[in-house]
Amino acid sequence: MSPTRLPFSEQLAEASRFILKGDYFLVVSHVNPDGDAISSTLAVGEMLAQLGKHYILINDNSIPDKFVFLMGNRQIADYSTKPQLQFERIITVDCADFQRVGSMKELFTAGIPLLNIDHHPTNDYFGFAQLIQPEAAATVEILYGLIQELGTSWNQELASFIYTGLLTDTGGFRYANTTSHVMRIAAEMLDHGAMGNEIADRLLERLTMPQVLLLQKALISLSFALHGQVSWLSVSHEDIGELHVSNEDMDGLVNYPRNISGVEVGMLFKETAPNQFKVSMRSAGKVNVAEIAHFFGGGGHIRASGCTVEGSFLDEVVSKVLKEVGRALL
Amino acid sequence: MSPTRLPFSEQLAEASRFILKGDYFLVVSHVNPDGDAISSTLAVGEMLAQLGKHYILINDNSIPDKFVFLMGNRQIADYSTKPQLQFERIITVDCADFQRVGSMKELFTAGIPLLNIDHHPTNDYFGFAQLIQPEAAATVEILYGLIQELGTSWNQELASFIYTGLLTDTGGFRYANTTSHVMRIAAEMLDHGAMGNEIADRLLERLTMPQVLLLQKALISLSFALHGQVSWLSVSHEDIGELHVSNEDMDGLVNYPRNISGVEVGMLFKETAPNQFKVSMRSAGKVNVAEIAHFFGGGGHIRASGCTVEGSFLDEVVSKVLKEVGRALL
Repeated sequence: MSPTRLPFSEQLAEASRFILKGDYFLVVSHVNPDGDAISSTLAVGEMLAQLGKHYILINDNSIPDKFVFLMGNRQIADYSTKPQLQFERIITVDCADFQRVGSMKELFTAGIPLLNIDHHPTNDYFGFAQLIQPEAAATVEILYGLIQELGTSWNQELASFIYTGLLTDTGGFRYANTTSHVMRIAAEMLDHGAMGNEIADRLLERLTMPQVLLLQKALISLSFALHGQVSWLSVSHEDIGELHVSNEDMDGLVNYPRNISGVEVGMLFKETAPNQFKVSMRSAGKVNVAEIAHFFGGGGHIRASGCTVEGSFLDEVVSKVLKEVGRALL
Repeated sequence: MSPTRLPFSEQLAEASRFILKGDYFLVVSHVNPDGDAISSTLAVGEMLAQLGKHYILINDNSIPDKFVFLMGNRQIADYSTKPQLQFERIITVDCADFQRVGSMKELFTAGIPLLNIDHHPTNDYFGFAQLIQPEAAATVEILYGLIQELGTSWNQELASFIYTGLLTDTGGFRYANTTSHVMRIAAEMLDHGAMGNEIADRLLERLTMPQVLLLQKALISLSFALHGQVSWLSVSHEDIGELHVSNEDMDGLVNYPRNISGVEVGMLFKETAPNQFKVSMRSAGKVNVAEIAHFFGGGGHIRASGCTVEGSFLDEVVSKVLKEVGRALL
């Protein structure tokens, strides 16, 4: 089952042939697109435009407002609006498997030539051609190589797309995947005019009103157990409705308990529907939170995982989860 | 009054002669030292150690706990403990004028040879020799040049010091001073073994217990005026005492109101003593908050300033300040 992986230089040559040979492209990324997904989609669009190709950029969801400043006069169509589509080749970006494209997977007929560009170590090598580099911090890091291979020119917008994906997938150049290669590409993008400060300000610093009101409410719920090694916040179904909070608004919340000195496991309990709690878990390193999530039918990574736990009230769900966390901390 | 500024290469040559000629050095930085001050002090210490010089690293204040992981077995003495000092030359880092060293200024006798290494545009060129580059994002960016001039070798610790100053003085590579030069040096420091992820995690992500409890309390005070263009938080004298909050713990608080979408001026009112409020102001760009601070006898920059306002209760102080902010927003 283990896919044969071509050396990266050969993958690059193949990807570049795939692009040069086609005329009508569909460029898609994953559902609930994040910074790397959106900027990879836009960067591929810019490459295709420079090569004189026809293309449609599309996503199963609409693009969150905070990314709109990046797009200039580009469009990423929303698939749910059933736009007219004409294409003969597909390029997927930042998708580990083809299910990640959401309902657009119905377009992926067996015969359609598809190029799969991704950095997830779990990529299952779907498609006709692959450009996959699990060592890359972001899909845009791979696109940087492809842009050089194709000889596409740099401009402020393309540089800003690449910068955005690097910035967001490294948590603002903070995670362990922030390699010197990432930092050197970021430097080069600044030289090409990437608006580094504005991108960071808009995507990492700015808070929406629902976000700050949610933080205010959620922090009141801050709780600790097991001698301060576990901390959590909770958000009720009522609060989510009242504050008109999107999933995106809740994104960073779990970092508050996780970042407190001495905390080994930080958690967020979101009551997404009455009696149903989505639990996000973050580990400082000691505990494998993927195992705990797995116990409850969820999944994730050693340091970041999630699951859904049923229970008629919050305390019941918290104590179910705490029992497993306590076991892991022994 | 405007000081003559030597070309940077000549400044580097002079600084390096200053160091090579001496034997006993005192290395000092400013009161309430931040990441750049501490890591510049440590980096100069490492350079002097490699050159076989005797040196004492010292500060008017003790080093905040969160920086201790950086220091290895190095010491930065606390001047208030009146340590035994033997030195013939002084190197100041990150000090715009000699008052910034605090009570250590009593050591700055007229005859003592002093090298002033700094990146503040307001530096008054005090001392015997200067190494000043106002374009540098951080003093460590200047030290990077000096290390190359002196031919000192890189090791993991020295690389981590330089990385720390770059990271903290650019707000985690987010401010407008994050140039491609900064990013390239950061890349090189990672190649030399700088623990980028750990440094970012400890200095930018981690929250102390007083910090998170303070944030919880302060967010409850979140207020808005002038159609959402102004937002502020307040912290009472009682809270500061009860939660054992340090000045450092309050550092990032003003960013919450400042980062809310649509807010032009974000403020923090800290009741530092009964009836005395320290006001921090941040501007999104429209308003020059230095002018407002100046009106109340304070100072700062266009986008970040502070002042102290007296008043028998918070509302009185808030309305005094709001009046001036409203005028500036007209």
